[in-house]
Amino acid sequence: MKPISYREAGVDIEAGARAVQLMKAAVQATYGPEVLAGIGAFGGLFEASALQGMNAPVLVASTDGVGTKTKIAAALGRFETIGVDLVNHCVNDILVQGARPLFFLDYIAASRLNPEMVAQVVGGLAAACRAVGCALLGGETAEMPGVYEPNEFDLVGTIVGVVERQQIIDGQTIVPGDAIIGLASTGLHTNGYSLARRVFEGWDLQAAVPELGQPLGEVLLAPHRTYLAEVRQLWTNGITIKGMAHITGGGLIDNPPRILPAGAAVRLQRGSWPIPPIFRLIQREGDIEEEEMARTFNLGLGMLVMVSVEEVDSALRLLGNGVWRVGEIISANGGAVVQIG
Amino acid sequence: MKPISYREAGVDIEAGARAVQLMKAAVQATYGPEVLAGIGAFGGLFEASALQGMNAPVLVASTDGVGTKTKIAAALGRFETIGVDLVNHCVNDILVQGARPLFFLDYIAASRLNPEMVAQVVGGLAAACRAVGCALLGGETAEMPGVYEPNEFDLVGTIVGVVERQQIIDGQTIVPGDAIIGLASTGLHTNGYSLARRVFEGWDLQAAVPELGQPLGEVLLAPHRTYLAEVRQLWTNGITIKGMAHITGGGLIDNPPRILPAGAAVRLQRGSWPIPPIFRLIQREGDIEEEEMARTFNLGLGMLVMVSVEEVDSALRLLGNGVWRVGEIISANGGAVVQIG
Repeated sequence: MKPISYREAGVDIEAGARAVQLMKAAVQATYGPEVLAGIGAFGGLFEASALQGMNAPVLVASTDGVGTKTKIAAALGRFETIGVDLVNHCVNDILVQGARPLFFLDYIAASRLNPEMVAQVVGGLAAACRAVGCALLGGETAEMPGVYEPNEFDLVGTIVGVVERQQIIDGQTIVPGDAIIGLASTGLHTNGYSLARRVFEGWDLQAAVPELGQPLGEVLLAPHRTYLAEVRQLWTNGITIKGMAHITGGGLIDNPPRILPAGAAVRLQRGSWPIPPIFRLIQREGDIEEEEMARTFNLGLGMLVMVSVEEVDSALRLLGNGVWRVGEIISANGGAVVQIG
Repeated sequence: MKPISYREAGVDIEAGARAVQLMKAAVQATYGPEVLAGIGAFGGLFEASALQGMNAPVLVASTDGVGTKTKIAAALGRFETIGVDLVNHCVNDILVQGARPLFFLDYIAASRLNPEMVAQVVGGLAAACRAVGCALLGGETAEMPGVYEPNEFDLVGTIVGVVERQQIIDGQTIVPGDAIIGLASTGLHTNGYSLARRVFEGWDLQAAVPELGQPLGEVLLAPHRTYLAEVRQLWTNGITIKGMAHITGGGLIDNPPRILPAGAAVRLQRGSWPIPPIFRLIQREGDIEEEEMARTFNLGLGMLVMVSVEEVDSALRLLGNGVWRVGEIISANGGAVVQIG
């Protein structure tokens, strides 16, 4: 009987170690002076003395994945943008509460790890972290044969940020009459891919689609953008952001209620922003109802920002292109909390 | 053509929402006064003003999974202990740097989510968090049809803890002659399951194995324990812990070097601790070499603690059962960093 080695049983520890080497430089470029140790130790160390200068620091943390957008990346063999997707998604998730990012950790798992693929993913994670001033503090890779389908992978991220307690955005000052600003998405971001993939089953991801002006795969892989710069611009110019909704799973319908106070609803005005061609294509090819579209996709709006009517024009001027006044807060009176009229 | 709904495309948002309801009470029981918001918001809020009373707080963060132990849980349809596994694994991972846990976030993904299963997993996570005084601050569930194999799942956790900068354990005071204390594991903990599953392919997990005294599935599912209480006991009694090694992936061979300073190596004395029957069974049934066993499994020692020879007897007395003096630090002179003689 031949001895079984761990590698033969489907787990290759050395492949993981090689991948770690490949991505070390990119990761270390995200380190500010707060980071006390490199990757390879058990846990990442982040000096928190900056928090001691705050009045009442509150840590804000969120864990998320990128959904089956991983399948598009795997099908195209392009893994860098999926790392960008994950970081930007997480940055937005804590931004809506007013928090700025401190550090990020990732987890990449597949039935079998390809070091080049892992290095691409982490390269994307690191670039996106660096762009928002966030340390990529740690991460883990796992090979789980029999749990993941062959050639598929999952990618999970956790972000930790900080906000002054007095500056937490909780939507409590939102009142009927407030204006809603929509900020352009770059595409599907990280939501609705299971539906989109079913609609496009059998399509060639590499072939150009005239209606899209580029190959379907390119459009589906467009990375999730962050709205940190836009929000900071509003803050530094004295605009009061009363609430924000990051449009993720649940689309335009299920996300805004997470920030609305009792008695407030959202009315979005169809036609006040351009719906990107990819959403029209999905709707037509899948024969999908309007309601289902709005509950699944961002339809071109990756973030909604609630401001007073007095400040909406200044805010729109400050933000420039890709920004529209898309609706208003109304009184909730028994109907849907989000109406798209 | 029939319209496609998101549910038909393999994603059931409502099942996720039901699962969230089921586990809310267990999660909220982990909240201390620092937690400012419940689950359901975008990110969890953790008041960090306690850190302001510290001299130089350092946040320690770690992300990890439980490997293919998920497959044993799935095969037996028992999901609570896997949550305990994940929390305790993560607690140990930051404990070795001297950190105490603050909060934890989880991610559960499968091709299809079963709300009962998710509630069991989160129930285990919450119980384990509560036992160590850690808030289960947030989590995410994801259905990824086509990425995960049917009836399989992955479980990922991120822990954030804190340590005084002056009390970070980095192993730098370790010198040849220091004693190594081994703390009993409860079994495989969360490592080596791909190899173990291959060895036991075709075995009935429910059938009793005389040599083990209980069914194989019970032994393989035994939850990873935490060493927080033992380490605290040493600290409160004035014992200086010079270094710790949490024995995870890479087993007794690859983990100790992560804490050793240059010039130091570990010599473990075979026979100084009892190797649990499950490891003997795996080795015999798989015809696995000693070296491979030690590089894959903890072999009965879930944590190694390095102390001076002056303090080792006091430490052993304090800790009582399930604790052995298993070896010593020697000078590294070209050979293996970890020797098991």
